[in-house]
Order: sequence, then C-alpha cells, then structure tokens
Amino acid sequence: MARVVRGGIDLGGTKIETVVVDSRSQVLGSARRPTPTKGGPADVATAMVAALKDACQTAGFASDQLRGVGVGAPGIIDPQTGAVSTALNLPNWRDSYPLGERLAEAFGTEVRVGNDVQVATDGEFELGAGRPYRSVLGVFWGTGVGGGIVLDGKPWIGRGGGGEIGHTVVRMNGRRCPCGRRGCMEGYSGRAALEARARKLVEEGEKTDLFKLMQKHDRPRLTSSIWARALDQGDKLATALLDEAYEALGNGIASAVNLLDVEAVIIGGGLGIRFGQEGADRIASEMSPHLYHDLQPPDVLVAALGDVGGAVGAALLVRKTARR
Amino acid sequence: MARVVRGGIDLGGTKIETVVVDSRSQVLGSARRPTPTKGGPADVATAMVAALKDACQTAGFASDQLRGVGVGAPGIIDPQTGAVSTALNLPNWRDSYPLGERLAEAFGTEVRVGNDVQVATDGEFELGAGRPYRSVLGVFWGTGVGGGIVLDGKPWIGRGGGGEIGHTVVRMNGRRCPCGRRGCMEGYSGRAALEARARKLVEEGEKTDLFKLMQKHDRPRLTSSIWARALDQGDKLATALLDEAYEALGNGIASAVNLLDVEAVIIGGGLGIRFGQEGADRIASEMSPHLYHDLQPPDVLVAALGDVGGAVGAALLVRKTARR
Repeated sequence: MARVVRGGIDLGGTKIETVVVDSRSQVLGSARRPTPTKGGPADVATAMVAALKDACQTAGFASDQLRGVGVGAPGIIDPQTGAVSTALNLPNWRDSYPLGERLAEAFGTEVRVGNDVQVATDGEFELGAGRPYRSVLGVFWGTGVGGGIVLDGKPWIGRGGGGEIGHTVVRMNGRRCPCGRRGCMEGYSGRAALEARARKLVEEGEKTDLFKLMQKHDRPRLTSSIWARALDQGDKLATALLDEAYEALGNGIASAVNLLDVEAVIIGGGLGIRFGQEGADRIASEMSPHLYHDLQPPDVLVAALGDVGGAVGAALLVRKTARR
Repeated sequence: MARVVRGGIDLGGTKIETVVVDSRSQVLGSARRPTPTKGGPADVATAMVAALKDACQTAGFASDQLRGVGVGAPGIIDPQTGAVSTALNLPNWRDSYPLGERLAEAFGTEVRVGNDVQVATDGEFELGAGRPYRSVLGVFWGTGVGGGIVLDGKPWIGRGGGGEIGHTVVRMNGRRCPCGRRGCMEGYSGRAALEARARKLVEEGEKTDLFKLMQKHDRPRLTSSIWARALDQGDKLATALLDEAYEALGNGIASAVNLLDVEAVIIGGGLGIRFGQEGADRIASEMSPHLYHDLQPPDVLVAALGDVGGAVGAALLVRKTARR
C-alpha cells in the first residue's frame, strides 16, 4: 500500500517554502523557491507548483501521489474556494485569483488555502512549541509582524480579519507604519520598517555597516541574517534600531497578553527564528514591566518548526483528506 | 406558587449596586449603598447584605425568598468558593475573604461570585447592547478602565486574568498609570487618572472650574457628572483632558479590535454611561484611523443596561439555581 502523503506550501513575499509530510506530519522532503517579483498571480502559482514538485522529488514521491495540498497565503482568502485577493506583497495580486483551483488542477487532489499566519500558528500549536498549551498567541516577526491566536484549542480569527497584532498602537501619533497608519508596533519592529528607518537615518548622516554588509553578501535587502551580522559586529545603528524593535514588541505583546491572558507566546518569522530563544527571552524581558499579572507571565518561546513551520502548518489544512 | 427571584450585587470601589430580578432577568427592584471606605472585608460584606435587603424591600419580597445571589467583585476571585482577595480598591482587602460563604449564610441560598467586569459584559451580551452579536468586547470606562470579552458566545478570561484592556500600552514610556506602569490606556482615560492629572496641572498653574464644581455639588471627587458639567461649561482643561482620554481609548480599543476582530464594542462604566452614545461615537471615530480592516469596523455602542448592568449581569451567575 502506498504511503499517504500531503503537501504544504507557505507562500511568502520573499520565498515559497514547500514540504511533503506523512500522516503524522513528519517532513519527508522540503524545497524552497524565490517568490516571483514580476508578472502576476499565474506566475506565482506556477512557481508554487514547481516548488512543491521539488519537495516531492526530495521526498521520493511522484507529485500525483499527494493526497491533499494545504496552502498558507497572505491577502484576503476565501476558505471555501481557495481564491485569494489583495495579496499586496505579491506581484499585481490585487484582484481575486483562483489559487486553490489552479493548484488542484496541477496536482489532481484537494487543495485548501488558509491565512499564512494562522496556519503557522496552528502548526506550532499542534506540532511545535505550542504543544504543551491550550491557548497561545503566535507572533511572526519578519517583513511585517503578524499574529495568530489559539484559544482553548481552537483558532480565533474573528470575522476573518483577526490576529493583526502588528497594528497594535504602541505610540499614539508615533512613527508612520508601512501600512500607512501611525504608531503601530510593526512600524518599529518589522523588517521592512527597520530597513526604511535605517535608510532614512543614513540619508540624515548616521553611520552604519548594514548596507555594506548587504552588498558584500549580495542581498537585495536587509535580511534577517544581515541584521544578525551587524549586531555581531557591534554596529551601533543596527543595535539601537533592534533595541527599539524589542521594546515595541514587548509593549505590544504585553498589551495582547493583558487582554487575552494566554498561556504562551510563540515567536516565529524570519527575524524571530534568526534571533532564536535569546530573542524570545529579550521580548519576554521587555514585556515584563507591562504585564498586569506580572507574577503569572506567559511562557515566551521561539517557534520550534523553524523555516518550514508555515508549510507544515498549511499541510494540516488537508489532514482529513489524507486520512480518508 | 411564589415567584422565583434572584439577587445580583455589583461591588464597586465607590458604590454597591443591587437588584432583584425575575426568571427572565427583569429588574423588580434595585438599591444602592456607598462602599465602606474604612474597616475591612467584613464591613463591606455587611453593607452588601444591607443593600440587597433594600432591593428586596423595594421589590416587595422577603430576603429569604431569594433563590440564588450572584456577585460581581473586583480583585482575584475563586469562582468555586466565592473567596475574594487582592481587591485593592476596597478597604484592607488584600488577604482572601470568604465573601461567597458570608453572603450565603446571610441569605440562606447559593451565592456565586464572578469578576465584576466580566459579569457586566455577560449582562450586556445576553440582555443588553450585545444581544445581536456573537462576539463582543466590553469596555468599562470608570474609575479605571476594565474589559470583558465574549467570543463565539462564550466569555474568555484566559487563565483568569484576561480582559485588562485598560493596561494596553498606548504610549511607550508614556504617562504613569495608577497601576504604577507606564503608558497604559487607563493612565490617559480612567477617572482616577484624569483627576490626578487635573490636580497636577492646577498645581502647575493651569486654570479649571473642575474643583469648584466638585465643591459646589458637594462631591468628594471629580465624578463623571462633574466632568460632564465642566464640558458643558466649555472648561478648557476638562475639554483637553477628555480629548486626550478619547484619543487613548480610540487607539487602545482599535488595537484590541485588530487582534480580535469582534463584531461589536460595548462602552459601559461611569464615564461611558454618562457620555452615552455620543461618547461611544467619539470613541468609534478615534478608533477608525487605527483599524487595520477599516472598511469593516465593529459597531460601537453604549451599554444598554445602565448603572444596574453589573448587578443584572451578576444575577446571571445563579440563573441555574433559580431555574431548579
């Protein structure tokens, strides 16, 4: 009897992560491709198909053996049809595109599409750092800052738009966020906001090695590894900006914990994974002075599934298909 | 056959509100007594018994006819035993006191004790402004600012300490809150914080009629009605402080909505009730620029049960007793 395997795809603004997992969600193979920055949704879908086929090959399965493919995507998602719209970090993806249908045709199996941050949180809750708990807040600290909520074992997304912890106001009338609003936590801590801030300060005459490191390592932007290198070198501007980022994360996450009193906060995302448990500990330490019940703080843990966590979480969306 | 009636008590830092309700939660009688400011928990319990007896008299029932008494209390509550500790707004109430047992002896019926803000939210959810919705955030804007959460029809209190929306940080390193932390929403909007701020500004030489109005109307503090009068007179300092309070409430509540995406926000509490739907509309307007999904804002409504809402909500705690 053939083994039952499922596919998982995490569609990010920078890269497409894919996995093939078995019925116990063990990763049998994985692959990564860059997200197209030109073209449109059809080109992105083509790259997703190719990336998941790569993962199948790595795992030693033909792609038509997949029983179910789960996708975590940004933007506005119709969970019934798998259509995705308003994915503003992806090329020309404003209108609705039938992503689920397109992938179902390519793989000949059921495809389900969920919110990228929520499936990553579900993955950590069921399989990763969240396993000991019944209620967790996932904070994905990368290009932006996203959030996922699990309360009493169940995801909470409100009317479909919940979890936007990045847009917690940590400073009234504060800095402009990439979203256009003022004072959001993401405006002080997201990778894109940090890069924009660094560029502005350099234009104003401040010194930093951040952009030299970027060129030396041939990166198109200030990636999490560039930030980590700059910190290791003791770069003063990078250190000051990250200090501010940790402070904003501590204030904003403490506010969410004061409201929800979850058992654990799980820190993922590109920067979150890069800075690891040490970074999670710094966030916990910045949260502490703002926790109303400071004698009963939540555990603050780095995500355990690493870079493939979003894809593994996405594959959970089609668990039932695979179990049939 | 005797009618089945229940008692409800809302134990606040300033006053004790009590109601007698029928099986459909209609208020048959109500009474109010000031909360003792001296003595200790036993004196507060004695005043609570007297206040609920007053309500029974108003309703035309003997107090031994009550079938169940529900209490909303501040502090840390053991919902199994009805013991209350750390009620810091009440006189010498740090250690655990068996409030539930004491009231059960006095009335010869089952007594259940819940969190004051959560029972008020439950009351609005089931009987008041929250009835059309499945998920609501209650914000009680009074001496402090408390919050209650109902998600998919069920209260959410986390590990028992959730709902502390007043301690959402709206300004990193901002003003000192009465709780001792920095930048909390309550520090800019709670009645106690507003009064402390007004006193400080007067000491620094600013002019206001707030304290003259307080003396004229023989109040021991700047009550919500004093604030309302000062606004009506166009008092500049009062207007500026309330403007700032609305801004802080808008920022902090928008942050909570970005996280939870509830259908409705219900504004209660002394100041919330005083400023009514007009005040709720101002809060909605201050929230708007900070809502991530600004095309799908929640409804923002003033609490419908008024001053007795907390007591009516408390009586819901013993609904099952009464239905036996």
